[in-house]
Amino acid sequence: MKLIQGGITAAKGFKAAGGHIGIKAKRKDLAVVYSETACTYAGAFTQNIVKAAPVHWDKAILEEGHKVHAIVVNSGNANAATGLQGEKDAADTALVMAEAMGIGQKEVLVCSTGVIGVPMPMDTIKKGVPEVAKSLSESFEGGESAAEAIMTTDTVKKTIAIEGKVGDVTFTIGGMGKGAGMIHPNMATLLGFVTTDVNITKEMLQKALGKAINTSFNMITVDGDTSTNDSVLVLANGLAGNPIIDCEGEAFDQFYEALYEVCKYLAVSIVRDGEGATKLLEVQLSGAKNFEEGKCLAKSILTSSLVKTAFFGEDANWGRIFCAMGYSGVHFDPNKVNIKIESTAGVEAMLKAGLPLPFSEEKAKRILEENEITILVEMGEGDTSVTAWGCDLSYDYVKINGDYRS
Amino acid sequence: MKLIQGGITAAKGFKAAGGHIGIKAKRKDLAVVYSETACTYAGAFTQNIVKAAPVHWDKAILEEGHKVHAIVVNSGNANAATGLQGEKDAADTALVMAEAMGIGQKEVLVCSTGVIGVPMPMDTIKKGVPEVAKSLSESFEGGESAAEAIMTTDTVKKTIAIEGKVGDVTFTIGGMGKGAGMIHPNMATLLGFVTTDVNITKEMLQKALGKAINTSFNMITVDGDTSTNDSVLVLANGLAGNPIIDCEGEAFDQFYEALYEVCKYLAVSIVRDGEGATKLLEVQLSGAKNFEEGKCLAKSILTSSLVKTAFFGEDANWGRIFCAMGYSGVHFDPNKVNIKIESTAGVEAMLKAGLPLPFSEEKAKRILEENEITILVEMGEGDTSVTAWGCDLSYDYVKINGDYRS
Repeated sequence: MKLIQGGITAAKGFKAAGGHIGIKAKRKDLAVVYSETACTYAGAFTQNIVKAAPVHWDKAILEEGHKVHAIVVNSGNANAATGLQGEKDAADTALVMAEAMGIGQKEVLVCSTGVIGVPMPMDTIKKGVPEVAKSLSESFEGGESAAEAIMTTDTVKKTIAIEGKVGDVTFTIGGMGKGAGMIHPNMATLLGFVTTDVNITKEMLQKALGKAINTSFNMITVDGDTSTNDSVLVLANGLAGNPIIDCEGEAFDQFYEALYEVCKYLAVSIVRDGEGATKLLEVQLSGAKNFEEGKCLAKSILTSSLVKTAFFGEDANWGRIFCAMGYSGVHFDPNKVNIKIESTAGVEAMLKAGLPLPFSEEKAKRILEENEITILVEMGEGDTSVTAWGCDLSYDYVKINGDYRS
Repeated sequence: MKLIQGGITAAKGFKAAGGHIGIKAKRKDLAVVYSETACTYAGAFTQNIVKAAPVHWDKAILEEGHKVHAIVVNSGNANAATGLQGEKDAADTALVMAEAMGIGQKEVLVCSTGVIGVPMPMDTIKKGVPEVAKSLSESFEGGESAAEAIMTTDTVKKTIAIEGKVGDVTFTIGGMGKGAGMIHPNMATLLGFVTTDVNITKEMLQKALGKAINTSFNMITVDGDTSTNDSVLVLANGLAGNPIIDCEGEAFDQFYEALYEVCKYLAVSIVRDGEGATKLLEVQLSGAKNFEEGKCLAKSILTSSLVKTAFFGEDANWGRIFCAMGYSGVHFDPNKVNIKIESTAGVEAMLKAGLPLPFSEEKAKRILEENEITILVEMGEGDTSVTAWGCDLSYDYVKINGDYRS
């Protein structure tokens, strides 16, 4: 398994394009992904009760179970809280792409991200989608252009590609993601798109995706807000030519490892680019009773505004970490807890068996000055380890979100 | 029932004092409250697993069930995550007050607020408590001085007094509170102290407190962080001379109304003074299935960083309100929801039956420019109404909490 250059167009047979069609004032706002070979499709979606129209569209296609050819993604408008008109607009968006490519309407997936509660500008969509589709390309640039077009408050494109082997056969998997705010995924998350040329059944692809998401996208938080539009879509067109993966086993594991790396990379990239974030925070929590409790504790730490502002201020205020664990809802013995902080500048123990340790403020300050900091927590309750990612809370987060609509 | 001047010393027989003893660099850091007549005592405490030592002390006395005479409160140090030494320090703090006043050690309640994980400066406490106790006074100033001494990041003192009647007998109830950050009470909250001269049994006092807290302190949030030290203590010395309230009925209701007003006033004052807050937000949510669901929905709105920053930016981004309801964990039909915003500048409907309404951006802006804004939500699911309070998220919140310890 090795990292290679590329993103959503890295795998054989996948084309992509991005363009500016006029949903946003200036920046690119529409991306399309296409495979001439029909693709097996797996997906995971937000658990927010208020779901955007395109989420309903993509879930319905997943349940119907047939193959797909394309994805249309717009930024600038979430098509959420838009009622029946929104549902129709999502379907019409699929239709216009289908007509442009000569495929079926239900072979097109649709994703949207942006402001909630504003009707989709369908004239713009109907005119823009065929134009952007004209520039579909298998090139690296095609993928980069698409990755740029799905950004909202993101400051960088998020793409990755990996080459792996199932048995003797080489396959490629690539992806792109977006997300910088409203990030606290529950089940799926934000927008993540993964394409691969591996040959795999729908059941095994969905199984691999579900497993990979649990320890990647579902382990990140920027601001504790679960979006109405979170979606991760995986398309597999089989062009790698491997014997089809139709059960668990070595080939499944080999593919899963690559899929997990792609999901984890995209998830961590999203947190690193969290709105206003200056620091990436990783919680490595060991000794939990089980995965759910470990996840709840780790995410409680990373969601605490007080923890996040302390890290922004480079202040070794570990009491806030301990406090956030205490109100997480998980029952534990505080007298067994150890807490350390670590970065490339070193490691410093703060709390041992529930009691504060004398520590060097100077050394703690050096550790906290780094851009990537790990919070090491030992629970002493069981054998489960979990890792979760978050970011600090800065002035810029307030600035970005105090005036996002305009 | 009428509002009168005063606070913790308003009720007959209660004295208070505040002073600077050296826990904090400059500001007052120690308050004492005292009644020569022994007091019936009710309390409610944080449900955080990590509880501060004084919380353990006060809970133990509540369970023992005897009467008390005094409260000692320090600010600047939370005496939390301080282990057995912390428990001993809380007990020693009670002892030094007991010796100064000639009362029993277990007739003294103790509360602390400040930084977590730092040992209490017991030499300072032992020297300082008797000195401050010397200036105990029944005067208005005594109460004001105590209210000032319990402040941490608070910018204003929080005091209230009410005169009411049970039957023909006039009684007085007064209180003081503190809290500006780490405010997301679960069960009890922050520090709230209430004194009354009403004559009431312990059981009825505890019952009234539990009921009052559910719709006051437990309905506020500043930052979603539940503290390790949250405590609300009520002392009743019976000096009003009314026939003892020992069951529910008219007298109980009359007292309860006054207690609720005191609790609500202190709770709302705390949110209004929320760290960095520029606006008080009130959610009035009606049509919920039951109280728990209504509370969960209202607090999900008020805890959302995206909602809070939108109000700071005076941006009518109601989609974030709807989104926060959707991920609250409560199941509801989005197509029944109505949302309006209201202030002294007017009212504007944003969402009706799950669909956006055309609204005047100009009028919305005028509504949002006010300092107190109400978010009106109709669920259409049942008959329960709830009210909850929160505040916006500003640059100053980040500033205050990026460097709280130093």
